[in-house]
Amino acid sequence: MNRTYFTVGPTELYPEIKKYALMATKDKIFSVSHRSKEFTIIHLQTCLELKKLLGIPKNYYIFFTGSATESMERIIQNLVCKKSFHFVNGYFADRFYNIACQLKKNPQVIRADYGSGFDFNKISIPKDTELICLTQNETSTGVAIDMKHIYNIKKKHPDKMIALDIVTSVPYTKIDFSKIDVAFFSVQKGFGMPAGMGVIVIKKECIEKTKMMQEKGFNVGAYFNFVAQAQNAEKHQTVATPNIAGIYMLGKICKLLNERGIDKIRKETEIKSALLYRFFDEHRYVRPFVKDKDLRSKTTLVFDSIIDSDAIIKRLSDKGFVISYGYGDYKNKHIRIGNFPMHKINDVEKLLHTLNNL
Amino acid sequence: MNRTYFTVGPTELYPEIKKYALMATKDKIFSVSHRSKEFTIIHLQTCLELKKLLGIPKNYYIFFTGSATESMERIIQNLVCKKSFHFVNGYFADRFYNIACQLKKNPQVIRADYGSGFDFNKISIPKDTELICLTQNETSTGVAIDMKHIYNIKKKHPDKMIALDIVTSVPYTKIDFSKIDVAFFSVQKGFGMPAGMGVIVIKKECIEKTKMMQEKGFNVGAYFNFVAQAQNAEKHQTVATPNIAGIYMLGKICKLLNERGIDKIRKETEIKSALLYRFFDEHRYVRPFVKDKDLRSKTTLVFDSIIDSDAIIKRLSDKGFVISYGYGDYKNKHIRIGNFPMHKINDVEKLLHTLNNL
Repeated sequence: MNRTYFTVGPTELYPEIKKYALMATKDKIFSVSHRSKEFTIIHLQTCLELKKLLGIPKNYYIFFTGSATESMERIIQNLVCKKSFHFVNGYFADRFYNIACQLKKNPQVIRADYGSGFDFNKISIPKDTELICLTQNETSTGVAIDMKHIYNIKKKHPDKMIALDIVTSVPYTKIDFSKIDVAFFSVQKGFGMPAGMGVIVIKKECIEKTKMMQEKGFNVGAYFNFVAQAQNAEKHQTVATPNIAGIYMLGKICKLLNERGIDKIRKETEIKSALLYRFFDEHRYVRPFVKDKDLRSKTTLVFDSIIDSDAIIKRLSDKGFVISYGYGDYKNKHIRIGNFPMHKINDVEKLLHTLNNL
Repeated sequence: MNRTYFTVGPTELYPEIKKYALMATKDKIFSVSHRSKEFTIIHLQTCLELKKLLGIPKNYYIFFTGSATESMERIIQNLVCKKSFHFVNGYFADRFYNIACQLKKNPQVIRADYGSGFDFNKISIPKDTELICLTQNETSTGVAIDMKHIYNIKKKHPDKMIALDIVTSVPYTKIDFSKIDVAFFSVQKGFGMPAGMGVIVIKKECIEKTKMMQEKGFNVGAYFNFVAQAQNAEKHQTVATPNIAGIYMLGKICKLLNERGIDKIRKETEIKSALLYRFFDEHRYVRPFVKDKDLRSKTTLVFDSIIDSDAIIKRLSDKGFVISYGYGDYKNKHIRIGNFPMHKINDVEKLLHTLNNL
């Protein structure tokens, strides 16, 4: 049976991925050396298309990692001497915080109930904080933070760096990167690619911090430290053999999305999320987990079920639609639905029709 | 023009990769969750096929990383409190040593001239060494260490762990893993896959060391520490979303090689390397860099040119054969030729014929 993945990632691939893979195999793109001119052109093209799509300014580097989890680790390791500050309202924000704990960075944390947001006016961030970590879109709970709150934090604390988890919000969420120091995502969500690659977008200035940390004897990791990554990124190279296929595919997907137009993609995302929320707002036993409508994610929608969610997920799977279980403690209480640019309005309607007749 | 890659990696893909990619896309393998049963089956199958192919005992874990460089970092970080010992006779062995320096593990080093081996009888390894690091096959110089020397080191130092770089020697080199504690490779060499995934093979006992390090407060990294990786590997899962496509492909390639028979593959590798060395032993201006025939790698062959190697490489490329430049300082002095299982005897003959008529 032909199944459609409405999971929160890994999710449905763009249908074009197959074409790109065949093109690349034919042209033997995956055999080229990462030190060759051919590779630097691929790297450059991907950076240009990605920057165009997301509106990333010139004074930002693009680094490639193995996953968003590795990105979290590298960011903490390379930008925090002693103290990070974490907004935690879900499992992935908690992961970012835990990584800072594991790396012994004495992280401070402000917690909100899962499914809720923060009262940003009431939060005071200690003076000696170096990096403020936020999860713009919590994949585990379906809460999205309005970017205006994040810009306000930066305005209030221009001396501190902001690190933003945008794993499941790009390319939907419009971000003014000039007000963010570092952000990261992985490609198996909104970019509809096979998993295995993370991307860090980082302001060039931030590298000075890593240099200072190196000089002071802090452990900033080995070959993947940001100074080395920046030196290589300047030449459109990488410190070690990278996921060349991933970098190539990301460039192609960004080019495709640029051609379609990001405004159109954003509008379609909103149309689809409105359809989904409207359906579940009136559902008998499955309701949006996030009560405050202003906090509801448009890309990873989480719903609370009064019956075991396993039954819904399995019956839906039998009808050809794959959606995600809840995360962590919510595994059998929630269902999660991904709403990314490769998901067609038509397929959302089919999904809802199927749900209606389960 | 259809080019054949005889590079040392990334190199020629197995032609079957295209078929596997199409199968996986059709079956939507790259959309499955890494927490799903489907993924644990893929993980399990890959581990079984790999273990069968390389003769890895049951009491070893398979961990997946982003690259061999990352593997080096994780190994040092997770297995060395204070002191590692490094045999360095090339750039990649030096990288392993440098990573230990960057992680402040006070590494000791014994160096041999690039292109030469070690006089193992004369080397004394300090008592307080925790991990002995060796590069079984130096991709930068084309020197391979006979496994018997490595087994002897373990026999003499049963209390110390041995970490072995087998990046470009697997699956050719026959290894008795029971005499090795940890080994690592990447998939874009002898496994003829797109780059972007490293593999660590590690004795389960080694994890006790990481546990002890954690308890004593050493920095063993965050989510990718070996205790967490082992806990996940036990369940055929991974700590973060992995390169699912890479894990899937590796299993398929190992299955293919198991069907062909590893003994046959090894014999063919020797036939091809004999053809190549015989040709260059008698060449006018390009000669094997490694003078001692017992030290010559069968998988990454390095040749010294009295003319600028760039001219040879470019002219060969014009005729449809891509080979590698020299590494580091040898860039324009050497040529390097990869000899992996996907390289056909017939194509080696064509390569030599073309070289003869350049």
